[in-house]
Amino acid sequence: MKIEVVENVLKYNKDQAEKNRKLFNKNNILVINLLSSPGAGKTTLIIETIKRLKNEKNIGVIEGDISSTYDAEKIKEHIDDVVQINTGGSCHLNATMIDQALSKLDMDRLDIIIIENVGNLICPVGFDLGEDYKIVMSSVNEGDDKPVKYPPVFIKSNPVLLNKIDLLEISDFDLGFFTSEVKKLNPSGDIMIFSSKSGKGLDEWISWIRKKIK
Amino acid sequence: MKIEVVENVLKYNKDQAEKNRKLFNKNNILVINLLSSPGAGKTTLIIETIKRLKNEKNIGVIEGDISSTYDAEKIKEHIDDVVQINTGGSCHLNATMIDQALSKLDMDRLDIIIIENVGNLICPVGFDLGEDYKIVMSSVNEGDDKPVKYPPVFIKSNPVLLNKIDLLEISDFDLGFFTSEVKKLNPSGDIMIFSSKSGKGLDEWISWIRKKIK
Repeated sequence: MKIEVVENVLKYNKDQAEKNRKLFNKNNILVINLLSSPGAGKTTLIIETIKRLKNEKNIGVIEGDISSTYDAEKIKEHIDDVVQINTGGSCHLNATMIDQALSKLDMDRLDIIIIENVGNLICPVGFDLGEDYKIVMSSVNEGDDKPVKYPPVFIKSNPVLLNKIDLLEISDFDLGFFTSEVKKLNPSGDIMIFSSKSGKGLDEWISWIRKKIK
Repeated sequence: MKIEVVENVLKYNKDQAEKNRKLFNKNNILVINLLSSPGAGKTTLIIETIKRLKNEKNIGVIEGDISSTYDAEKIKEHIDDVVQINTGGSCHLNATMIDQALSKLDMDRLDIIIIENVGNLICPVGFDLGEDYKIVMSSVNEGDDKPVKYPPVFIKSNPVLLNKIDLLEISDFDLGFFTSEVKKLNPSGDIMIFSSKSGKGLDEWISWIRKKIK
């Protein structure tokens, strides 16, 4: 008798992710898997993105949290296509959870799905959800050393986002250090810096999405 | 043949944690397991704590990160008893890692050991390290909704710390909401609010440690 545990989990996830990816491609949906620490501002970025694009594109959001519907309710004020996944303690979403969420979204109608992963810089990195882009967002108040301390998520992300640049002036965040550390890990990755709150720099992010829509 | 995986891991961890706890008690060492999101300011709090207590007590620090010795180097500028644990990707410390780190600390001499866990609000919660106190630190810039979105860590923590209150004025953080949500989860838990950077409010934290020293 063979004992297969971890490998099976990852293999099963990979298979389900490929099924999700095929479904997304069949429906011409751009899918973004957004990762960050708790409180870096994923939900605010998603809301600001919706505000800027909802008159031209149909956007759906899948919200991942260990519990609560707090963020989903905030997004529901702006669009109808929101599904909350409560992982029940697990520190990341997986491809099966996404598959279940998709049954509650109108795939024929949507142009973009943004998946807000559980707030965590470590666990979500290894779990493909079938997305087109895995994107990490760091924020100024977390400090400039996040690429040094959490390399894998920065290696796998393109682009890399930096939020809350309105706080640069009152912090000791060294933007040159941050960008050079990201470039060491991910030489071909673009870095976009902005403040979701003030809107400064968000145009580049919105243009990037427009270019990637299928 | 029985397949036992997850339970064994947790049982084994619990057994090792009890061994660590006995060793800490035998040596009269106060042990704090400090948890937070990435960038909430654990390292800065530890350094400010060391500055205020090192002339009266011997302090050791165990630094947990998935990779790098970045934080340990910063702390080494203030005290000699620092051990870095690189988890190699794991999102939390476990009791065996602590056991290995202890062999590099002078247990006869130390009065306090602060364990800086991996930056993560989810995974470290379930892993007892043998500590006296598991303490979560949230920070103003993460937003006031962390207790709603990550309940388990707030349930298990006493006291609950809130850092970066120097940013309260320029943020929309609702201190009343934060404290009432923490109280719902953890009615008997104390809440200490401060800014490690400015020093405001840190006296209460330092007094708390002084009272707990064995």
